[in-house]
Amino acid sequence: MTDPQGAGVTVLGLGAMGSALATTLLDAGHAVTVWNRTSARAVDLSARGAQAASSIGAAVAANPLIVACLLDHASVHETLDPVIAGMRGSTLVNLTTTTPNEARELATWAAGHGVDHLDGAIMATPPMIGTPEASILYSGSRDVFDASRPVLDRWATSTYDGADAGLASLVDLAMLSGMYSMFAGFLHGAAMAGSVGISATEFAARATPFLSAMTDGFEHFAGVIDGGDYAVPGQQSLDFSDLSHIVRASEEQGVRPTTIAAVQELISEQIADGHGAEGFARIYESLRAERTAKTGQTHQDDNSDELEVAR
Amino acid sequence: MTDPQGAGVTVLGLGAMGSALATTLLDAGHAVTVWNRTSARAVDLSARGAQAASSIGAAVAANPLIVACLLDHASVHETLDPVIAGMRGSTLVNLTTTTPNEARELATWAAGHGVDHLDGAIMATPPMIGTPEASILYSGSRDVFDASRPVLDRWATSTYDGADAGLASLVDLAMLSGMYSMFAGFLHGAAMAGSVGISATEFAARATPFLSAMTDGFEHFAGVIDGGDYAVPGQQSLDFSDLSHIVRASEEQGVRPTTIAAVQELISEQIADGHGAEGFARIYESLRAERTAKTGQTHQDDNSDELEVAR
Ligand SMILES: NC(=O)c1ccc[n+]([C@@H]2O[C@H](COP(=O)([O-])OP(=O)(O)OC[C@H]3O[C@@H](n4cnc5c(N)ncnc54)[C@H](OP(=O)(O)O)[C@@H]3O)[C@@H](O)[C@H]2O)c1
Ligand SMILES: NC(=O)c1ccc[n+]([C@@H]2O[C@H](COP(=O)([O-])OP(=O)(O)OC[C@H]3O[C@@H](n4cnc5c(N)ncnc54)[C@H](OP(=O)(O)O)[C@@H]3O)[C@@H](O)[C@H]2O)c1
Repeated sequence: MTDPQGAGVTVLGLGAMGSALATTLLDAGHAVTVWNRTSARAVDLSARGAQAASSIGAAVAANPLIVACLLDHASVHETLDPVIAGMRGSTLVNLTTTTPNEARELATWAAGHGVDHLDGAIMATPPMIGTPEASILYSGSRDVFDASRPVLDRWATSTYDGADAGLASLVDLAMLSGMYSMFAGFLHGAAMAGSVGISATEFAARATPFLSAMTDGFEHFAGVIDGGDYAVPGQQSLDFSDLSHIVRASEEQGVRPTTIAAVQELISEQIADGHGAEGFARIYESLRAERTAKTGQTHQDDNSDELEVAR
Repeated sequence: MTDPQGAGVTVLGLGAMGSALATTLLDAGHAVTVWNRTSARAVDLSARGAQAASSIGAAVAANPLIVACLLDHASVHETLDPVIAGMRGSTLVNLTTTTPNEARELATWAAGHGVDHLDGAIMATPPMIGTPEASILYSGSRDVFDASRPVLDRWATSTYDGADAGLASLVDLAMLSGMYSMFAGFLHGAAMAGSVGISATEFAARATPFLSAMTDGFEHFAGVIDGGDYAVPGQQSLDFSDLSHIVRASEEQGVRPTTIAAVQELISEQIADGHGAEGFARIYESLRAERTAKTGQTHQDDNSDELEVAR
């Protein structure tokens, strides 16, 4: 089934996600040129009708719209640095996961070479691409976003977050921060439940509706933060939210309090600073404090050292 | 309106929660005797028909069912130690928040004095008491739970978790661990969004449906944990879940990575131990490791020192 409206698109990177993006476009009738560092990965897509480019140069020359879905920021430069000079007038939509600053760097670099740039952050797994559950956030050139909608909307619900190229990544990582903290909190709870023989499945059955209902609290916290007064009545105070007993109970049950102790560190800091009677949302102030803030500095430095290893 | 079935109940502690418990029983027609360390707090309840006991001894002698809702474990002993010897044959339902081990200690202590004991963990705020949204978990004597249902069910949906008196507290704290981690994750995300001028309210509008939907993942994690094989296909790997870029992006935006770095510490540890290709649920193994585990020891000791201050 070929869609005569289908614009030609080049997809760079045929990992799990790049392959899903290319497949969805092929299925919708677009002419798709693909390239992958390891060329064997293009075989399946060729069989489905994609053109496999013989080189990165041929790939970026084949279509005015180039979509990159590589491993990380460094791999985008490694792939495009040798050919960017010949890409003037092309459009680059980068769906590779990067930090906001990396997205900004790519925007400036692309602009310097006369290449229009749009950054995208994919909030979906590969099997979700092309379904209504998939969401992709975009930021950078509004013109590129508008002109590319016929392609972008094949993949997911497309949201434009603004001209600052870093915004899509930023909103994505902000949402993922919430998700991973929630996941870790669930696993901590499951470990506590497991310490007395309650299965994780049994715990999940109780925790899922509870935590889902508790997301209603976000709007309330947000109102307090945006209102700028952490002392407005009707809130649960930081003194009341003190998690020392959860830290202690975790240790008593042989569960490492790593993640819950990190939350308590922020609570303790605000209580020590005299804000114990104010609401829980006040830990926002600890979080947005610059790293040079006095309290917590030692702890953060410890973490940075450990994380360096993983980078 | 008096319910002839309403059993007499003594409520010890008339803070926000104790007052709500006593009021709900009075409204349902129970004969209620109240006691509070600071006697002035009993005035309002007396006006509503409660008997204000002149002493703690008179309070515990007034009814066979004694409900305690005091500040913490220590305040329960401080209040009842002087009168426990005269309470033989009475029933004590303790709704004061404690750790599982503290609840177990009270159960043993009460049994030693011939007092039947049931521990309760309140999952509600005072205004929710008496509404269908309120939930109270119980553990300890099944006989006390069954016999007290006509009273307990006035307050909330009553759930019996088992004979180990520590279970209600444990399940409560396990659920709260998830909730506070999720709240802190939301506030971290809001701080990232705030760093580019996105209001917390705008961020909440996006994060609320997303995180609520992501609670579906708990059941999946639980299946992996209970199945005992973290390498089953169809999971997001730990390598993929590496949060180094979120930590880095947070720092770039001036947001302290405290909570997200704690999650990453667990991920890094499992990757370093050779489990990077396994699923995210594997950090359960880091959490349930005894504190004597080698990796992460220094970091935990740091936290313990800081937390000592807040206790
Ligand atoms: N999978 C998801 O659920 C998901 C969700 C949201 C966002 N994303 C993002 O989408 C991007 C791709 O993810 P994926 O799941 O497709 O990863 P993947 O399956 O691991 O594929 C990685 C791709 O990057 C290529 N690559 C790696 N290093 C390279 C280099 N130095 N130069 C050129 N190409 C290089 C690989 O080529 P080779 O075949 O030659 O190794 C492969 O095509 C990532 O940024 C990821 O964060 C993925
Ligand atoms: N409020 C909630 O949303 C909520 C939710 C779930 C569980 N809980 C639990 O319910 C319990 C009571 O909470 P609350 O909100 O009612 O607290 P609260 O308003 O602060 O009241 C504390 C009560 O404890 C009494 N007390 C404190 N130290 C005492 C001592 N050494 N000896 C005797 N009495 C003492 C206080 O008496 P004085 O008036 O003399 O100071 C007061 O009656 C706590 O364990 C809390 O964790 C509360």
